[in-house]
Amino acid sequence: MADNRKVMIAVVGAGKCSKKLRDMAFEVGKYVAEHNGVVICGGLGGIMEGAAKGAKEAGGVTIGILPSENKEDANEYIDYVIPTGFGEARNIMVVRAADAVVAFPGKYGTLSEMAFALHSKKPVVSINAWKLGDEIEQVDNPIDAARRAMELAEKGK
Amino acid sequence: MADNRKVMIAVVGAGKCSKKLRDMAFEVGKYVAEHNGVVICGGLGGIMEGAAKGAKEAGGVTIGILPSENKEDANEYIDYVIPTGFGEARNIMVVRAADAVVAFPGKYGTLSEMAFALHSKKPVVSINAWKLGDEIEQVDNPIDAARRAMELAEKGK
Amino acid sequence: MADNRKVMIAVVGAGKCSKKLRDMAFEVGKYVAEHNGVVICGGLGGIMEGAAKGAKEAGGVTIGILPSENKEDANEYIDYVIPTGFGEARNIMVVRAADAVVAFPGKYGTLSEMAFALHSKKPVVSINAWKLGDEIEQVDNPIDAARRAMELAEKGK
Amino acid sequence: MADNRKVMIAVVGAGKCSKKLRDMAFEVGKYVAEHNGVVICGGLGGIMEGAAKGAKEAGGVTIGILPSENKEDANEYIDYVIPTGFGEARNIMVVRAADAVVAFPGKYGTLSEMAFALHSKKPVVSINAWKLGDEIEQVDNPIDAARRAMELAEKGK
Repeated sequence: MADNRKVMIAVVGAGKCSKKLRDMAFEVGKYVAEHNGVVICGGLGGIMEGAAKGAKEAGGVTIGILPSENKEDANEYIDYVIPTGFGEARNIMVVRAADAVVAFPGKYGTLSEMAFALHSKKPVVSINAWKLGDEIEQVDNPIDAARRAMELAEKGK
Repeated sequence: MADNRKVMIAVVGAGKCSKKLRDMAFEVGKYVAEHNGVVICGGLGGIMEGAAKGAKEAGGVTIGILPSENKEDANEYIDYVIPTGFGEARNIMVVRAADAVVAFPGKYGTLSEMAFALHSKKPVVSINAWKLGDEIEQVDNPIDAARRAMELAEKGK
Repeated sequence: MADNRKVMIAVVGAGKCSKKLRDMAFEVGKYVAEHNGVVICGGLGGIMEGAAKGAKEAGGVTIGILPSENKEDANEYIDYVIPTGFGEARNIMVVRAADAVVAFPGKYGTLSEMAFALHSKKPVVSINAWKLGDEIEQVDNPIDAARRAMELAEKGK
Repeated sequence: MADNRKVMIAVVGAGKCSKKLRDMAFEVGKYVAEHNGVVICGGLGGIMEGAAKGAKEAGGVTIGILPSENKEDANEYIDYVIPTGFGEARNIMVVRAADAVVAFPGKYGTLSEMAFALHSKKPVVSINAWKLGDEIEQVDNPIDAARRAMELAEKGK
């Protein structure tokens, strides 16, 4: 990564979730933006929207990589919308573009993102997401997740 | 699925594996071909090669969807090679083309295939592969795996 | 390409076309199958359906790589359906899997397939398709197109 | 497109080109950034690098969607790097993310981007790029190209 580029943190998790989880994702996005990181995500609702909203609250930058071909499908907190038309294969791109991944609970789409992150050796920090072995760091609050993801991302530079 | 089309069974698992696992994959491929099914896989070595070899032993048909752009990367038992150049995203295509999936032990690429199969509601039969919940049927020998996958695939017609 | 593998000929062109063009595509597919080649295409209607029907008439094998995730979208003459869910990006896979391409008139999807074929140095034989320079052989009847495509494909082995 | 989002202009063309063409691409990127647009491109050299450099000169934002999996392959003027690992299929994403496309001379990769732009009904402005019919506006200097692309992009909002 060129030294002038900002760290990119992927936030992955369910497209529909409880208010509590959304608020936690918001905290992750806010922390990332406050520390000069970029939030990248799948661009839709739930965890993705929470994280993007948090980043915008802190004046940060957000990128959303959509499964569909339609920019209109992005949530309102996404600055730069990349509509792929590739369906779930866009999960791979979310992960590849990230320097580290924060994983929230989600279903099989989230699982696939975690699998691809591990496959491509991206650091993954989990808040109650899928248990997939020791390569994933488990934390129990959003600030720790965001801080740890930023540290791991910087280390990978 | 048109009634005249053969059932397609994806066999997924590690690209490098023990002889024992390869032999088990061979049995799966052979059973599928003997029962008029087509083996589809990622086209490379290990589990994929074992399954394709088994299918050819029984005079069956094999399809391999490669991560690379080069047909030469396919193992010698693949009849129809689809070289995608899409890297790991080809895993999604292997699963989408299948009517059911037999999963062998593998690393995160295999995990992503199982995740995508579950995401797209394809039946998955596992022989000691990742434990991901009750939607996946666990069996302990290749003949049971192949038989059960064929049954589930036919049911989905 | 392994010596035992059959030559694969992509037939590309409009998904909706005149009966005359469909009949010409039928002749291409029939010739390819009669000479032991496999027809690969985008799996939908028009030129693709004509070519697949011709190949089946001659007892050949057909592969269709669909833009959608649904096998049901394939025409009835496709033996092996690969539903990608990748939209127009599936055009790239049709071309990559082919040893040579026969191009019929079509719109921008066809143009993109011809562009990708030229980009990846696949031989292209055109029957009144887009004029894109000297690397594309122009012929004016389906038998010449199929024969020439088979020759170029064999040469590339 | 949400009203608060900036217009995104794709600049496509050869990855290796003359200094004169690079300078023209620079002018396009600069104009786009000066008028509050974002430059999106394939992230590599030649036309892509010229356009990105121009945008950064004017304090703008640049996004590069790479064919490879490696962020390091991006040119130094790209702010946000999306490494796809999807090879030439990334061309489709460059075009889909754009509200309008400026096309410079290029080979078959550029042709495929123009084909996909036309296929998905994105406005294309050409500076001596492939002649593909009346749907593409021909201009002969970079300022006209950038101005016209911005107008067409705004109209599509």
